[in-house]
Amino acid sequence: MSIVVQNIERADQSVIDELAKCGVATVHEAQGRKGLLASYMRPIFSGPSIAASAVTILAPPCDNWMVHVAIEQVQAGDILVLAVTSPSDAGYFGDLLATSMQARGGIGLIIDAGVRDIADLTKMNFPVWSKAICAQGTVKETLGSVNVPVVCAGELVNPGDVMIADDDGVCVVRRKDAQEVLAKAQTRLANEEEKRVRFEKGELGLDIYDMRGRLAEKGLKYD
Amino acid sequence: MSIVVQNIERADQSVIDELAKCGVATVHEAQGRKGLLASYMRPIFSGPSIAASAVTILAPPCDNWMVHVAIEQVQAGDILVLAVTSPSDAGYFGDLLATSMQARGGIGLIIDAGVRDIADLTKMNFPVWSKAICAQGTVKETLGSVNVPVVCAGELVNPGDVMIADDDGVCVVRRKDAQEVLAKAQTRLANEEEKRVRFEKGELGLDIYDMRGRLAEKGLKYD
Amino acid sequence: MSIVVQNIERADQSVIDELAKCGVATVHEAQGRKGLLASYMRPIFSGPSIAASAVTILAPPCDNWMVHVAIEQVQAGDILVLAVTSPSDAGYFGDLLATSMQARGGIGLIIDAGVRDIADLTKMNFPVWSKAICAQGTVKETLGSVNVPVVCAGELVNPGDVMIADDDGVCVVRRKDAQEVLAKAQTRLANEEEKRVRFEKGELGLDIYDMRGRLAEKGLKYD
Amino acid sequence: MSIVVQNIERADQSVIDELAKCGVATVHEAQGRKGLLASYMRPIFSGPSIAASAVTILAPPCDNWMVHVAIEQVQAGDILVLAVTSPSDAGYFGDLLATSMQARGGIGLIIDAGVRDIADLTKMNFPVWSKAICAQGTVKETLGSVNVPVVCAGELVNPGDVMIADDDGVCVVRRKDAQEVLAKAQTRLANEEEKRVRFEKGELGLDIYDMRGRLAEKGLKYD
Amino acid sequence: MSIVVQNIERADQSVIDELAKCGVATVHEAQGRKGLLASYMRPIFSGPSIAASAVTILAPPCDNWMVHVAIEQVQAGDILVLAVTSPSDAGYFGDLLATSMQARGGIGLIIDAGVRDIADLTKMNFPVWSKAICAQGTVKETLGSVNVPVVCAGELVNPGDVMIADDDGVCVVRRKDAQEVLAKAQTRLANEEEKRVRFEKGELGLDIYDMRGRLAEKGLKYD
Amino acid sequence: MSIVVQNIERADQSVIDELAKCGVATVHEAQGRKGLLASYMRPIFSGPSIAASAVTILAPPCDNWMVHVAIEQVQAGDILVLAVTSPSDAGYFGDLLATSMQARGGIGLIIDAGVRDIADLTKMNFPVWSKAICAQGTVKETLGSVNVPVVCAGELVNPGDVMIADDDGVCVVRRKDAQEVLAKAQTRLANEEEKRVRFEKGELGLDIYDMRGRLAEKGLKYD
Repeated sequence: MSIVVQNIERADQSVIDELAKCGVATVHEAQGRKGLLASYMRPIFSGPSIAASAVTILAPPCDNWMVHVAIEQVQAGDILVLAVTSPSDAGYFGDLLATSMQARGGIGLIIDAGVRDIADLTKMNFPVWSKAICAQGTVKETLGSVNVPVVCAGELVNPGDVMIADDDGVCVVRRKDAQEVLAKAQTRLANEEEKRVRFEKGELGLDIYDMRGRLAEKGLKYD
Repeated sequence: MSIVVQNIERADQSVIDELAKCGVATVHEAQGRKGLLASYMRPIFSGPSIAASAVTILAPPCDNWMVHVAIEQVQAGDILVLAVTSPSDAGYFGDLLATSMQARGGIGLIIDAGVRDIADLTKMNFPVWSKAICAQGTVKETLGSVNVPVVCAGELVNPGDVMIADDDGVCVVRRKDAQEVLAKAQTRLANEEEKRVRFEKGELGLDIYDMRGRLAEKGLKYD
Repeated sequence: MSIVVQNIERADQSVIDELAKCGVATVHEAQGRKGLLASYMRPIFSGPSIAASAVTILAPPCDNWMVHVAIEQVQAGDILVLAVTSPSDAGYFGDLLATSMQARGGIGLIIDAGVRDIADLTKMNFPVWSKAICAQGTVKETLGSVNVPVVCAGELVNPGDVMIADDDGVCVVRRKDAQEVLAKAQTRLANEEEKRVRFEKGELGLDIYDMRGRLAEKGLKYD
Repeated sequence: MSIVVQNIERADQSVIDELAKCGVATVHEAQGRKGLLASYMRPIFSGPSIAASAVTILAPPCDNWMVHVAIEQVQAGDILVLAVTSPSDAGYFGDLLATSMQARGGIGLIIDAGVRDIADLTKMNFPVWSKAICAQGTVKETLGSVNVPVVCAGELVNPGDVMIADDDGVCVVRRKDAQEVLAKAQTRLANEEEKRVRFEKGELGLDIYDMRGRLAEKGLKYD
Repeated sequence: MSIVVQNIERADQSVIDELAKCGVATVHEAQGRKGLLASYMRPIFSGPSIAASAVTILAPPCDNWMVHVAIEQVQAGDILVLAVTSPSDAGYFGDLLATSMQARGGIGLIIDAGVRDIADLTKMNFPVWSKAICAQGTVKETLGSVNVPVVCAGELVNPGDVMIADDDGVCVVRRKDAQEVLAKAQTRLANEEEKRVRFEKGELGLDIYDMRGRLAEKGLKYD
Repeated sequence: MSIVVQNIERADQSVIDELAKCGVATVHEAQGRKGLLASYMRPIFSGPSIAASAVTILAPPCDNWMVHVAIEQVQAGDILVLAVTSPSDAGYFGDLLATSMQARGGIGLIIDAGVRDIADLTKMNFPVWSKAICAQGTVKETLGSVNVPVVCAGELVNPGDVMIADDDGVCVVRRKDAQEVLAKAQTRLANEEEKRVRFEKGELGLDIYDMRGRLAEKGLKYD
């Protein structure tokens, strides 16, 4: 059955905004190394570092009809997360849809398929993380669903989950865990800053993390 | 048999120049969604958006002898399109050959194999769409052919066909269809501009394309 | 057995510095077309062109413990070369380790696995050539070795070998061959400059390299 | 947190047994074309066609410790479904573990990683669907979890879900849907039998499915 | 435009039957090393060695409607050759369509996409060479064409061309060249038989092909 | 420089023969989990389990000239190990070369490229582990070397090293280590037999390997 779920819960926007500052690698560590989408998901241009609530799309191969349906469900600050029912590298999304997204306050796209109009999307500063870049268009023949749980690039994403995305890739945080993960991430960042100062002075990780004893115990030999 | 066809027909240059402005995604749509090379063909640097007549090369694996032969056949505004008889990621082409191409007015390369001297080619603003980047050089031992029909990255390319290439990939237009495809592409662009204005104002694709009735008819439910 | 070899020989730094100017493609040719790492090894940002002595790491999958051990062995001008005992795209290396490397004079990383903190590494101008970009972190549970011969991206690398890396990829030169390879590379460069001038004037490779006779002999036909 | 859930619900065994007879392609169709694992999941030998309740494992890369933990949770007729927290092709499972599985009534393995001892597993008639075959062993250093929801080869699998697997691949059916999906699958099979008789007589799908009118309407031309 | 070409020319059946006996590797050599489909095209079971006239299909991604249309065009001894307009690994073809093919005398399928019902197709001894095995079904929504030239797995195939397929892969021979290629292939086979006798006796290729002089001339050293 | 090393040392044949009985997985473990070739190396038919001394070949892409040179160096019981200087999936080896190998007592081929005549090689019971199956032939234009150290599928292989190969893949054992590795492998096998008996009785790995305490200590919870 094809369905559009219209009312989804979102995490607190202030939490989302702070998660954006933490970045994917830190958030992924902070929540116990889970939620990372497959490493083939790459940004179409370098630089963006965002966090946003997921409006999810489950789409048939080479059919972007549901993207139009989904955009109506987008609120300011949301991101589209598109999963497919069969692998496809076709270009589901281009500059017109990005214009529509921006007009409604949507801030990006995460898509386990292809995207096109790269030059325009870059000029518009509309970030996309995708599996492929491909000029091949899609049809509007078969229904899918909007705001149902999907598996995108190997990870389960529920509508309203928080997506963190930057040059390192994409990570999903469960909506209910967002506050707690943020706290842990911020602790990590503070801790990293302290470490960075010591590294800059030339101290070694071997000493900062007190590894020498355990290495010797495991049997590491120096020659 | 190895052969070099010296006299090939080209499309009208003014048509080619206008096709360059349309871009790959639009041209591909305009000609009925055909002619797109495989999405693994990527530009070595972002930005270029070109159209040019194909001088085709059928080359043995790891052997770039025919590139030298082909350059003699290049006229101002042409692009080389290299296909291989067996898959290879070797670097068939570098800055010296690009210098030769530019000296003769050639404007780029589309190659279903590897290319090298990326930093120099970027400085020279010589665009290449390739399957791989690889410093591995090639030999000059085995003949191939120039200006014969080839299959490059999954698409048939005839000498004199028009290649459109930009950040979205590469598309081939049959020489005889170029004028007609251009007309259709320009119509699409005009149409898209009109749509863009409506999207910018916040109108939805659901309404712009009048999709709601058909979606309901197909059984889409809202919850 | 896990071992850290502490005293390795390095090539002369002036030779290394000159090799950096030659670039990967030229060096690879100059040493008889060997030593090129697999073409999936890509720079995380464009532009760097370096040469450095290899401090090698043999690491377990998803375990970056040995990176800390290796950094202690790094001298000014060195580069880390990390090979894995089983394929992994995890992010073994990020901005803190890069800070540590830079504090000790290390100038880069070549890794047959993943790397993360791409935005920070780019800001720090710390070049990395990797198989993958991935925010997935690693553990510190299992020993590996430092400064043993490793196979990285399909090529044997000994500690102290000279790594050349730029936008074209990565090439390894045996420490003992460095001087001789440099001489050959410089000869090639001089030779290429001379050729470039002729190409710029519009001369063809067919004539510069005197190919027409041999092509005819092999049976190439013009139509 | 690492956890082992000990009491999971399973579908009715008689339903599972009947699903095995339907096969993956039919079950996948019957439940609305969802639940199919990625097509890179291949059987290590041809022939097996099974259905079983999933005992799920979430395992670290190159670490099979949790397999031992999971086998204790296996009941007669169950199958192990192993997902990884980071991609790995290492061989997590071999003939000893298969012996242990068979001793406890376990009937197979579905693993989004590697398996080894292929010759022995084949002799034992112990079916495995895997992403890779690899002699590389694993360690027992890091915890994972057993009987938690996992994403295996792109699909969400809950403990107790029914896995259908044959030469076509692997499909997951939600435990609660098993009865209903079976009914639909059996209807499809009956329907297919009827169709098969007509096809054997030489009737065309064009007529059996009454397609000619709709094809003409869509604009198909005969030449 | 979608079109079905109903009258295609075929090569002489006796020539086709003899080509089947020559095998792919020999035919590929005999026609000058061209026409080989990409090596990812693999048989679903070992053993078949066939030759047949191509009935071609150009199909949309995940849509097998045109297969039904094409089967009506199949004559005894023909093979279906399916190319897609966008990459897909979906299962376009299963046991019912194979039943229909066999009822009409069709002898196999070559498909640059997926196939399913492997166990049944094997029992029916219906050979398929495909890019993927996948239980994912397809829809019947979008038109394609039948008996137009297509690019399948990297090679141009015209309707009526002769497809040779065995455990080594798939090769296409132009209809008009079939007779001539057969003659050359048979000559090669005879020649190979003679060579085989000499190899069996322990003679070396170095002597049989008189290579020692040329090797020395090229500079091969023995140590 | 191209060279053929004629006198290589081999491990003791009785040791080699015993290693064959141990299998790849066991040998790989026994020598400390090193020496395993990449998992893309697959047997062309199931069943063979062999060990043999390596006669190595370093070959140019798509050029099998050196195979002929190498066969002259083969002694009874040897195996060819072919590495390439640039990736290729071409078919370097077929039934005539296999005939030549068998005539001289050679027992197989390990090739980081393609092979052809699969049906014949299977009938001849000539085992091959390859990266690809491909009917594409090769040329005889460019020299390589025989019996030099090569990197094959990611592992260093020296002439005279012992190759172990079976359905699990391929492993290399240094010639000098062969005796010692055999002893360790045999110990492992004996140990495994003992374990197998316990597993067959239904004992769990958790108890056989006494894992429960350490799991609890690491924090595993049961629910």
